[in-house]
Amino acid sequence: MLKIALGQMNVVPGRPDLNTNTILAMISEAKEQSAQVIIFPEMAIPGYLLGDTWEQHAFLRDCEHYADKVIEASIDICVIFGSIAVDWNKVNDDGRVRKYNACFVAYNGSLLGRDKFPYPFRIKTLQPNYREFDDSRHFYSLRKLSIEMGQKVEDLLQPVTLELPDRKLKLGCILCEDGWSDDYAVKPATIINNNGPVDLFINISSSPYTIGKNNKRNRVFSKQAKELRTPLIYVNSVGIQNNGKTIYTFDGFSTVYSEKGDIITYCPPFSASLKYIDIPLGKTSSIEPITVPDDRNTASIYQAIRFGTSNFLASTGINKVVVGVSGGVDSAVSAALFTDILGSDNVLLINMPSIYNSHTTKDLAAVLAHNLGCHYAIIPIQQSVDHTVEQLSSTKISVAGQASQFNLQVSSFVAENIQARDRSARVLAGAAAAFGGAFTCNANKSETTVGYSTLYGDLAGFMAALADLWKHQVYDLAEYFNEHVFKRDVIPKATISLVPSAELSFAQAVDEGKGDPIIYPYHDYLFRSFVERWNKATPEDILLWYKEGTLEDNIGCQKGLLRTLFPNPSDFIADLEKWWRLYSGIAVAKRIQAPPVLAISRRAFGFDHREAQNGAHFTAKYYKLKEEILNQK
Amino acid sequence: MLKIALGQMNVVPGRPDLNTNTILAMISEAKEQSAQVIIFPEMAIPGYLLGDTWEQHAFLRDCEHYADKVIEASIDICVIFGSIAVDWNKVNDDGRVRKYNACFVAYNGSLLGRDKFPYPFRIKTLQPNYREFDDSRHFYSLRKLSIEMGQKVEDLLQPVTLELPDRKLKLGCILCEDGWSDDYAVKPATIINNNGPVDLFINISSSPYTIGKNNKRNRVFSKQAKELRTPLIYVNSVGIQNNGKTIYTFDGFSTVYSEKGDIITYCPPFSASLKYIDIPLGKTSSIEPITVPDDRNTASIYQAIRFGTSNFLASTGINKVVVGVSGGVDSAVSAALFTDILGSDNVLLINMPSIYNSHTTKDLAAVLAHNLGCHYAIIPIQQSVDHTVEQLSSTKISVAGQASQFNLQVSSFVAENIQARDRSARVLAGAAAAFGGAFTCNANKSETTVGYSTLYGDLAGFMAALADLWKHQVYDLAEYFNEHVFKRDVIPKATISLVPSAELSFAQAVDEGKGDPIIYPYHDYLFRSFVERWNKATPEDILLWYKEGTLEDNIGCQKGLLRTLFPNPSDFIADLEKWWRLYSGIAVAKRIQAPPVLAISRRAFGFDHREAQNGAHFTAKYYKLKEEILNQK
Repeated sequence: MLKIALGQMNVVPGRPDLNTNTILAMISEAKEQSAQVIIFPEMAIPGYLLGDTWEQHAFLRDCEHYADKVIEASIDICVIFGSIAVDWNKVNDDGRVRKYNACFVAYNGSLLGRDKFPYPFRIKTLQPNYREFDDSRHFYSLRKLSIEMGQKVEDLLQPVTLELPDRKLKLGCILCEDGWSDDYAVKPATIINNNGPVDLFINISSSPYTIGKNNKRNRVFSKQAKELRTPLIYVNSVGIQNNGKTIYTFDGFSTVYSEKGDIITYCPPFSASLKYIDIPLGKTSSIEPITVPDDRNTASIYQAIRFGTSNFLASTGINKVVVGVSGGVDSAVSAALFTDILGSDNVLLINMPSIYNSHTTKDLAAVLAHNLGCHYAIIPIQQSVDHTVEQLSSTKISVAGQASQFNLQVSSFVAENIQARDRSARVLAGAAAAFGGAFTCNANKSETTVGYSTLYGDLAGFMAALADLWKHQVYDLAEYFNEHVFKRDVIPKATISLVPSAELSFAQAVDEGKGDPIIYPYHDYLFRSFVERWNKATPEDILLWYKEGTLEDNIGCQKGLLRTLFPNPSDFIADLEKWWRLYSGIAVAKRIQAPPVLAISRRAFGFDHREAQNGAHFTAKYYKLKEEILNQK
Repeated sequence: MLKIALGQMNVVPGRPDLNTNTILAMISEAKEQSAQVIIFPEMAIPGYLLGDTWEQHAFLRDCEHYADKVIEASIDICVIFGSIAVDWNKVNDDGRVRKYNACFVAYNGSLLGRDKFPYPFRIKTLQPNYREFDDSRHFYSLRKLSIEMGQKVEDLLQPVTLELPDRKLKLGCILCEDGWSDDYAVKPATIINNNGPVDLFINISSSPYTIGKNNKRNRVFSKQAKELRTPLIYVNSVGIQNNGKTIYTFDGFSTVYSEKGDIITYCPPFSASLKYIDIPLGKTSSIEPITVPDDRNTASIYQAIRFGTSNFLASTGINKVVVGVSGGVDSAVSAALFTDILGSDNVLLINMPSIYNSHTTKDLAAVLAHNLGCHYAIIPIQQSVDHTVEQLSSTKISVAGQASQFNLQVSSFVAENIQARDRSARVLAGAAAAFGGAFTCNANKSETTVGYSTLYGDLAGFMAALADLWKHQVYDLAEYFNEHVFKRDVIPKATISLVPSAELSFAQAVDEGKGDPIIYPYHDYLFRSFVERWNKATPEDILLWYKEGTLEDNIGCQKGLLRTLFPNPSDFIADLEKWWRLYSGIAVAKRIQAPPVLAISRRAFGFDHREAQNGAHFTAKYYKLKEEILNQK
């Protein structure tokens, strides 16, 4: 048996000093527990998502300095950890100093692995460049190194030999993506095993949470361990890291797979922990397989959002928030979330009625505040909005080179946005500063996708904690808060059953059942196909599926909905084109200035789903299909 | 002689339909002029900066459809163009369909180049992944292909054989970065020449403008042509493309280098054009070398900003703007720029005084409007600000679970930001909508770097046209507008000589010489070293240079300034730490929600200089240096 410690640590991005303290404390504890090996995540010292901080030489040297301290601490214990490795004599493709995303194996104060490799560490072979990942921007991969050295990838992927007092082990050290090699021409684990054989595979990762990703990872890694007939230890970090526009949670969920592919232990998700396991090497595991919690449900989403939001609050030093509450479901869930995290004493809910707000929603906002026990205030906006409209309309504008003057006309649409900005940029921003905190953006993903929001209005705030949830997921979360978190209906049932509405004009009167132009049961799924689908859907795909009668199946909305919503094809097409234009046009402009989004889906706005402000394009085939469909009738 | 047409076209990103129309029109014209070859830029059909549009299969098929039309048009003329090439039977590293950034050589309706290569096109070998480039996110490089095929890079880099009626030519077709191989282990042009020899090198590019980049490109490409003793034709696109947060101009400046390395012709920058050149092949060029305009001065910056801004206005359909004018230099330059582009009839300048604004600046704003001949209005904010402060202070906030109530306190700092937001989110946003246009963000790079601005206040707007200019460059541009654009002092001299101030409190009274906390003659250069320096500077580097006495030289500010500004080291260190904390902290949060920035420098905020909201870090060596310096005295 080999006693191994899984160092599922909280990694603070950009803080090698703090991370090294965490590592050293965990090493001490593991030594007290007589562990022979301790494993830390990928990029445990610097953190992973650091933007272009990698271009600071001082930061790189600082990481080297702290890595040395970790190596020094490896007396009588083998310490495996991820960090940046710098070759100061070579350059990356961009001409800056050579940097590797590396796995270090330290033992008794020295680094191992030099025997069949040019460096005393292992480097990442497969570098992800999709979603939030920019590995090739910063790090030099083993594939590039092989070309530079004129060697085969197969020659460079070698195990690390570890000589413990009582045995000699071949460790297969891989980094994160190296274990997800299905789509790559190179399969690192298989090659290393061929150069071994390997006694134990170790995958150090810095892998952000995504709904359902752990479920997939367990399938992929179980298969890998089984095929290679070798135990596999996956160690991932916990914490939050961000790319500026998008905030990711790292859930840890470090897992050990037996050589039969069974899961034999795991660290609890979203929680730093030091876990020990005795691994039987060289013989068949007798440890009973266990099952892990599913991560494809609302409970998992709640856990990720609560963890991400509370960590973001802590990292930015915000401990009081103001939430604008309208009586609707988005702001109610937001209020519940922040109250859950900060406690009701640190949350101020503000209802900001105009003449368009119904008694129904005003009452619901008050009931919500009462249920949550938060501070509560009503700050009406009508006087200020009237003043703005009056001031803009009455101001004389001089005309260049002429004696005449003119006045601006404030239309009802312009007045709608004036209301939204008055609420956020005037009341909430001012109140938050006076309250000593920040105000939240309660946007959901459906409205964010098509820009159904006002810039500097409801799209403002210090973070958008719910903006990666489709409207139907916001409803699910509302129910979850009532049932499982507060265990009573803190979010009023009427808020959940109410027609969603912005209440910015009498045309949006909730009591008359009038509300948003977004028909969530259909558009949630249509929009999702634009953003999250593996091969992103476009109007061409949608129209083809519509023509074939497979659209509802393909996007996953309720069957029979289309016929009800769109009696004839021209209505369907007009609706499709309208939203596609918004999604590709003004909505992009709004997202550029939106608050950071907490990512939970497989494609979050910001740095995950990247986009240009280029406007809408319709393909030649789209126009052909459209003509066929419209001429058919 | 070979008659070649340089198709320096305007590429509209994401619009293969429009780009193909442009290409076909240029082919027709070139055929009329009896050109034998016509060359278009890299990614001429799809555009280059498209975010994740590459994940839409329908878009890829659409590009193939339009490429076919271009290939069909290659009768009696060889058409060389860049586009996306898809191998529907293979996958990229991310598992999505295989995509190459490709150069097509079409002649008489067929694609050439199949003889020694698996595809009838050439693919990019060196893919940039720095600055704004994300090539490896979307495209599969020749380096990866060589590993996949088990072949050497050297075997795959082959010239394309073109058999014209009167001769047979070997073309060295490379794409953009392939010509910038100094930092790469692989040198595509040299290898292709070794597999030739090549008669003519063609570099198709999609290369954004950066101050001074053409100067460098001419040095690198001249050297390349000379060393390979082969003429080299560089064809670049014009237009604007964006990554959402950052807008790039493409200046074209297509250039032909003789086999001696001389520049023998070029297309004018920032202008679509079809230029012809007769190239003497196989013998020494007798064409006289010419010189090209320098791109390292204010004239070039003006040209880039005017081109980028006017194209962004056109692409977003904005033809009227509102500019908030304070009497200061940033808003004055912004007003001059938009008036220069849109004409005074389409520009509304608004001065929004509070009790803190001086007669001096109010008068300067009016003079500016008069000089430019723009529409002008004065919309005071004091009444609205007073109402907000009063409303926030007087509202009773109920305390959770208690009968008592409390009031918010609005501090003077909170009131400063209320003013800034009142101006932008209330007045300018409302006025712009009523005027039928958008309002501008007049921020410069100095204040953007450290977040000396108010979110939803002066940091709001549809675009930040000047946010990649340091304050001293804004002054240069102000002088340039007066001297070279308007040829009179439209920007009042007093605006240029005034102390820069936000005038948000009596502590910032311009008439008393009180203004911004940023000391531009020093901080401009300090901040530049954080952002734009090749190896980004950090407090550790700054302190080391300070200690050595080389700081002024290293950051490029005026000599002798430090001694004047900071009588003792502790003042210097306090200043350094303050700005570093702001730059790494709240300023990142503000930039996340800032408007899109027009890039002109070698590192623009947004998608070029990428960053995470991680807060400030000081290295171990920094603390050591600080201690040494403070103990020395």
